[in-house]
Amino acid sequence: MTGTVLIVDDVATNRIVMKVKMASACYDTLQAGDGTSALALARSRRPDAILLDMNLPDLSGIEVCRQLKADPVTADIPVIIVTTSRDGAARRDALRAGADDFLSKPVRETILMARLRSLLRARQNEAELRLRDGTSRAFGLAEPGAAFTTQGTIALIAAQADTALAWRRALAPHVSDRLVMLRPAAALTATGPAPEVYLIAADLAHSGDGLRLMSELRSRGPSRHAAVCIVLPPAADGARADTTAAMALDLGAADLLPADFDPEETALRLTAQLERKRRADRLRDTVRSGLRMAVTDPLTGLYNRRYALPYLARMDERARQTGRSYAVMVLDLDRFKAVNDTFGHAAGDAVLAEVARRLLDNLRPVDLVARIGGEEFLVAMPDAHLATARAAAERLCRVVEAQPVTLPCGPDGPGGSVGVTVSIGLSIGGTGPADPPPGGPGLQGDPVAGVLGRADSALLAAKAAGRNKVTVALSAA
Amino acid sequence: MTGTVLIVDDVATNRIVMKVKMASACYDTLQAGDGTSALALARSRRPDAILLDMNLPDLSGIEVCRQLKADPVTADIPVIIVTTSRDGAARRDALRAGADDFLSKPVRETILMARLRSLLRARQNEAELRLRDGTSRAFGLAEPGAAFTTQGTIALIAAQADTALAWRRALAPHVSDRLVMLRPAAALTATGPAPEVYLIAADLAHSGDGLRLMSELRSRGPSRHAAVCIVLPPAADGARADTTAAMALDLGAADLLPADFDPEETALRLTAQLERKRRADRLRDTVRSGLRMAVTDPLTGLYNRRYALPYLARMDERARQTGRSYAVMVLDLDRFKAVNDTFGHAAGDAVLAEVARRLLDNLRPVDLVARIGGEEFLVAMPDAHLATARAAAERLCRVVEAQPVTLPCGPDGPGGSVGVTVSIGLSIGGTGPADPPPGGPGLQGDPVAGVLGRADSALLAAKAAGRNKVTVALSAA
Repeated sequence: MTGTVLIVDDVATNRIVMKVKMASACYDTLQAGDGTSALALARSRRPDAILLDMNLPDLSGIEVCRQLKADPVTADIPVIIVTTSRDGAARRDALRAGADDFLSKPVRETILMARLRSLLRARQNEAELRLRDGTSRAFGLAEPGAAFTTQGTIALIAAQADTALAWRRALAPHVSDRLVMLRPAAALTATGPAPEVYLIAADLAHSGDGLRLMSELRSRGPSRHAAVCIVLPPAADGARADTTAAMALDLGAADLLPADFDPEETALRLTAQLERKRRADRLRDTVRSGLRMAVTDPLTGLYNRRYALPYLARMDERARQTGRSYAVMVLDLDRFKAVNDTFGHAAGDAVLAEVARRLLDNLRPVDLVARIGGEEFLVAMPDAHLATARAAAERLCRVVEAQPVTLPCGPDGPGGSVGVTVSIGLSIGGTGPADPPPGGPGLQGDPVAGVLGRADSALLAAKAAGRNKVTVALSAA
Repeated sequence: MTGTVLIVDDVATNRIVMKVKMASACYDTLQAGDGTSALALARSRRPDAILLDMNLPDLSGIEVCRQLKADPVTADIPVIIVTTSRDGAARRDALRAGADDFLSKPVRETILMARLRSLLRARQNEAELRLRDGTSRAFGLAEPGAAFTTQGTIALIAAQADTALAWRRALAPHVSDRLVMLRPAAALTATGPAPEVYLIAADLAHSGDGLRLMSELRSRGPSRHAAVCIVLPPAADGARADTTAAMALDLGAADLLPADFDPEETALRLTAQLERKRRADRLRDTVRSGLRMAVTDPLTGLYNRRYALPYLARMDERARQTGRSYAVMVLDLDRFKAVNDTFGHAAGDAVLAEVARRLLDNLRPVDLVARIGGEEFLVAMPDAHLATARAAAERLCRVVEAQPVTLPCGPDGPGGSVGVTVSIGLSIGGTGPADPPPGGPGLQGDPVAGVLGRADSALLAAKAAGRNKVTVALSAA
């Protein structure tokens, strides 16, 4: 559970002082005295965070940071640059090189520890979204490089309208995203998409209520994943200011800024937060669309067999609990092979997609429609009696037959259209005794094999009886 | 962005007082004066949280809570019971009915608001894991009902060993999970699986450092999703105590307990947190396994085509950046149809699974092995020259041929074995000019179509030349 921190400093005493601080917070440490060995250690040991002195004998801290962030093996390790310098240009270079934060020497321990916690948390959130094993990369969306052209929105929330206006004036020349001044209540009641980033004063009407506003934003749906940067009050009382800063980080602030922040540096920090927020959103979308891909049929958009069968098993279970029956239809397109052979596969695909649409349009929202084979569909209707289900099945036969399917234009000219029909086998589940598990002992029983099997047999009967009709299976009871 | 809170109280004045408090935190409100209309409103309007008075004219607050939690439409809405009663039995009944918290009248606003934020956040976290659209249910794991038989672990961290011991003695009769006393540093340095739940005193060695320990635990991998319940200090100073309580919730505490907590009630609360933690873990697993399902072939466990092609595209891109070539093999089982026809599909499946295993065992961990068609496999080797890749391909031919595949026992007796061979087409990518995008203008170019097409042609040549051999494609350059 212990985290490991790599301390990079050419002065041995500094490294020892830092090591003691780290040990008191139960971190293990690694040490490097120059940039080259720091890079090697970072690669081989993959620490959880790196504390990097700006001035090293061989490489500059900025160069080390750049190389760490350019190497896929080390790119996601948070880097905190430790420096005595107040040189704005150097700080901006470090941010551009990908540094996650600076701390001035002498380092204030409360803030250092809170910052470490915050960076470790952020990194783990991201790692979790990536699912560590890289599976999500399969969907081609999770790569960091995606370029964005749309403008983002950064909300500015200060105690006084004057202050917010001053922030906007100062930041505008350095930021290409929208800067919006908001009052606290408006931030909570606004409708529409939330800003990606909030810049909030720690003290608004009362001391610390900017932190509470951050907590409120993080509890409300649209803004919960926004990045919040807190502008600290002028540091009158050092210890109290440190406590506020640490608290802000522990409450989830993505970054801290002094009251007299440097606009150019702040613009870099806000933009970095915006990018990070968008990357996380993208990862969340990836997970969602990846899961959807796993259970849907790309051609028709219907659920696939993998989704449908467990779903049906749960429907059966629920029906037995509630005593309400459900209906299962197995539908098969009649003479589909002829469509493919005569008009080609593109036409066959168009027929499948159109039939899927007609099925969906003519069933209840609670009904499940799935494509379970090449030209075979499944419909499962919860809380349905035989009469209802039979009427629904007959309606489906009619709406598929009623209008020929328009075919896409092919290389040989316009597509024309083709008439199609479906045969349907219908069975009712959840009423009789539970179906016996198929197969011998030791085989896992499939609770819906019976109802599905009966629907299959009924489908065969419908085909044998001339197609384009509904046949009802004999009850299992 | 505004949340909606349903206020249930039979006294109109109480409802108005509460409505004003809610409005000041920018919540919209709904109101109900009795249990029946509360249930109807909760179903029809689905508020974000419910404040429920214990004494209602028609149903008891506990009965309303029970019905809310039993109805799938309302089950995930947090319920806070508001009561004047200090009756322990009634409180425990309410917890058993699924209440998320109690507040005593008169309600302390700071705590109420922090508790609302905390419950809304927890609910959204869970909703996000469920992916709202129910896709994850497809994997049959996300249903709440799964029973657990394994013991959980609850860690007790107090300022004094005596206190932790007293907690353990008091809780042990009511808890079936393991109760472990821990010192703060040990909680951070422990190895192995973290406890599911931590009970931590808000003040340890110093005031408020229990909250900091919670933040530390939430920043470290194994304990980051644990539920932390904070034991508040004795309330000497009411306002300060309220601030600590609110801060603990905003910092992520799952529950708060008074210093003189009732052991039986606390046991119910800890068990509820343990269940919630496990449910969330299960959902996270579901997402992970769901994604894995989407990209793997269930028969062989190899990656599928959907994963392999974008992966290959990225390998190509990286090769062009680094100037290092990569190799692609397309492998096809020779005369596989004959295996299926002669020995049946179960035998065919066994052959595919065994060949997949031999491929994996005889390649480098960095190489990708995928099943891209019925009996067709793809191997992609980053950083590989022609000589290396050809040697690897020839090795694969040999290890597939070397030993016949043992077949599973069938209904007609023992399975015997069958000799199989593969033909391999090999091509090298990333060195020549980038392959021209196939298709006309407007079509998205596929960067790896060329290298894959050459491997395919080489495979045909290998088949034509008598099978069980490797053919190398002509270079694209």
